[in-house]
Amino acid sequence: MSARFTLKASNGRSDIAVGEAMTALPDALSKYARPGAKVAVVSDAAISGRQGKPLVSGLTGAGYDATLLEVPSGEKSKDLKQAGQLYRRLAKDKFERGSWLVALGGGVVGDLTGFVAATYLRGISYVQAPTTLLAQVDSSLGGKTGVDIPEGKNLVGAFHHPALIWIDPAALKTLPKAHWRTGMAEVIKYGAIWDAKLFETLEKSADDLMKGYSPAWVPIITRCAQIKADVVSKDPTETKGLRALLNFGHSVGHAIEGATGYEIYSHGEAISIGMFVAGFLSQQYGLMDGIDRIRLGTLLTKAGLPARVRRPIRRERLMEFLARDKKAEAGVVRFVLLKGIGKAVSGQAIDPEYLDAALSASGL
Amino acid sequence: MSARFTLKASNGRSDIAVGEAMTALPDALSKYARPGAKVAVVSDAAISGRQGKPLVSGLTGAGYDATLLEVPSGEKSKDLKQAGQLYRRLAKDKFERGSWLVALGGGVVGDLTGFVAATYLRGISYVQAPTTLLAQVDSSLGGKTGVDIPEGKNLVGAFHHPALIWIDPAALKTLPKAHWRTGMAEVIKYGAIWDAKLFETLEKSADDLMKGYSPAWVPIITRCAQIKADVVSKDPTETKGLRALLNFGHSVGHAIEGATGYEIYSHGEAISIGMFVAGFLSQQYGLMDGIDRIRLGTLLTKAGLPARVRRPIRRERLMEFLARDKKAEAGVVRFVLLKGIGKAVSGQAIDPEYLDAALSASGL
Repeated sequence: MSARFTLKASNGRSDIAVGEAMTALPDALSKYARPGAKVAVVSDAAISGRQGKPLVSGLTGAGYDATLLEVPSGEKSKDLKQAGQLYRRLAKDKFERGSWLVALGGGVVGDLTGFVAATYLRGISYVQAPTTLLAQVDSSLGGKTGVDIPEGKNLVGAFHHPALIWIDPAALKTLPKAHWRTGMAEVIKYGAIWDAKLFETLEKSADDLMKGYSPAWVPIITRCAQIKADVVSKDPTETKGLRALLNFGHSVGHAIEGATGYEIYSHGEAISIGMFVAGFLSQQYGLMDGIDRIRLGTLLTKAGLPARVRRPIRRERLMEFLARDKKAEAGVVRFVLLKGIGKAVSGQAIDPEYLDAALSASGL
Repeated sequence: MSARFTLKASNGRSDIAVGEAMTALPDALSKYARPGAKVAVVSDAAISGRQGKPLVSGLTGAGYDATLLEVPSGEKSKDLKQAGQLYRRLAKDKFERGSWLVALGGGVVGDLTGFVAATYLRGISYVQAPTTLLAQVDSSLGGKTGVDIPEGKNLVGAFHHPALIWIDPAALKTLPKAHWRTGMAEVIKYGAIWDAKLFETLEKSADDLMKGYSPAWVPIITRCAQIKADVVSKDPTETKGLRALLNFGHSVGHAIEGATGYEIYSHGEAISIGMFVAGFLSQQYGLMDGIDRIRLGTLLTKAGLPARVRRPIRRERLMEFLARDKKAEAGVVRFVLLKGIGKAVSGQAIDPEYLDAALSASGL
C-alpha cells in the first residue's frame, strides 16, 4: 500500500509519498530537480553508512552530482555552529540556487537540514526522507525548521516546506525501541485530538504495533501524515489556533524536558506526561468525561509511556519553563484540551488551582 | 515633502514612509506593535549614541519596553557569530513572537537585524530605519536579509519584509562623503535601468546633490524607494528576471569586491566600474547608442565614481568570482544590459570576446 498527497499551504507546498521504497527516491526526484543538479544528502553517523551511502549511490546512478554530508548523532548537532559548517561546505562545493539537499534521518537531521536549506542563498529546495517514527509522522511535515541555542530548543528557525517528503516505513526496521515509544506518543496524540477512528485502531493493535516495524504500520503512518498535512495546510504559521492543536501535551512536555536538561525523559515520555496533565484538565473543565480520560491514559500506558514523572521537579522551575513556551503571548501559557477522544480545542487559559491539581496528579 | 506607499509582494509587505522625522517613528509604530511590546533597537557603534539613544528614549516614552543593542561597526558584524549573540540576548530578555526589532543603521545593521528577525522564533516583526543613502534607496527595501560566511557575502539569508520602512533623509546630515558616493551609484542605477526622467534630474543636479544632505534629496530618495518597491512587488524572489534588473553593474561589481578582498573598492566604486562594463557591452550588442553610453559614464564621473580599476586584477581570479555569482545558473553568468537610458534587459549571455573587450576597457 502506498499513498501520495500534497500539503498546500499559503507559505509553500510539499508533495508527500508514504509507502514507497527509499531506493525509488532518486527516480522520483527527477520530477523536481534539474538533471545533473548537485544534491547533498545530510545524515548522521548512526545511519549514514547503512542508509546514506546507498541513497547517494542511487542518486549518482540517476545522474545527480550527489555527496554525503555526515553530522554527529544527537541533539548537539542542531546548532548554529553545525549549520555554519554545512553552509561553508555547500559554498566550497559551489552549490547554487538549483542545487538540492536531502535530510535523511530523524528530527535533528531534518530540522538542521531544513534550516540550512531555508537560509543558504536565501533558500534552496530540499527533500525530507525521515527515518524515525517521530520524523515520519510529525517533524518532517509542516515546514518548521530550526536549530537550538543555549537558551532553548528551536528558538532559531524558519518556515520552509520541503518540495518532497519521502516516507518509507520500511526504513524503521532497525529503529531502537525507545524511538518507537517517542513516535507512538505523537501517533496517539493524532488520534486523541483529531481522529477517534485512528484512536480505536490503536487501542486494538497497540500491543502488536509496539513490537516494531510491520506492514500494519503503513496505514497508521499514512493517516498521521495526512492529518498533519491537513492541519498545517489550514494554519501553516500557527496563527489561527488550529495548528496549535498539534501541541496537545507539549506545553507541559517541553517544560519537563527543559527543567530536566533534556537528559531524564525522552520527548515521547515528556509529552505523554503532558497529555496526562491535559487530559486531567479536560475532565476538570467538564470538556471530556472520565471514560475518555481513562481511555487516553490506558492507551499511553499500553505503549509503554509514563503518566507521572519518576522524581519530582521543583514547581517554580517547571513554571519558569512553562512561561517560556514559544507560543506564550504576553507571558500567558494556554493549553490545548480535549472535548472527548478525537476532538480538541486550543487557547484555554487555566485557573492556577486546577493547574496545580493536574500537575500534582502526575507527580509534578 | 513626505510620501507613504506600500510594497506588496507575494512573500510579504512593507509600509514605506519617506520624509518624516525619526522622532515620529515611535508614534507610527503604534499602528503595528502591541502597547508595551518589547522593542530592541539594533545599531552600530558609529550611530548608537547619536541616533540610537534618542530613538530608544522615544520608544520608551511611547510606552514600549525598549532597549538598545549595539553591534560593532563594519561588515565584520554581519556574521553568524554576531547573529548568535543577538539571538541569545533576545532569548534572555524573553523576547516573544509579538516583540519587535528596529534596524537603525546602514546595510550591515539592516541585513543582520533583518536576518535575526527572520529566524528568531521562526520570524518576528521588524522595522528598517536606514541611516545611509545606500540603505535608504536600496538595502532596507525588498526583504533581503543575510549574513556573510568566509566563502562569500550574503551567502546565508532569508526573505523577510520589514513591516515598516521609515526613511528620514535628514538622518543623512552627518553621513561621510564616501557613503554618499556609494549611495549615488545605486541612485544612478535606478535612473539608468528604469527612469529616464530621474536620470535627467540627476544629470542637472549631481554637482549640488554630491555636496551632501539638502531637501533636494527627498524627492530623489522617494523616487528610488518607489522604483525598488515597484520592482520587488512584481518579482519578490528574483525568479522572473525583473528584480534581476536591479543587479545592473553588480555581477562585475561583486567580482571586483570579492577579488580584492572587499578592501580596495567601496561597493559604489565597484558597481560603478561594473556599470561602465555593462554599458560598454550594451553598446557592443547594439542595444544602446554611444550617446547614452557617454551620458551614463559622464554622470558616474560627476558623482566621483570610477570608470576603471586603480590597479589591474588577475583575469582568472576575477572570472572565478564572476562564476560564483549568487544568481549564476549551471555556472553561467548572465548580464543586465541597457536598451538606452531608462530601459534595461536581464539574462543576457555574453560572448567571451565581447566580455574580454569590455573588461579591458575598464582596466580589468
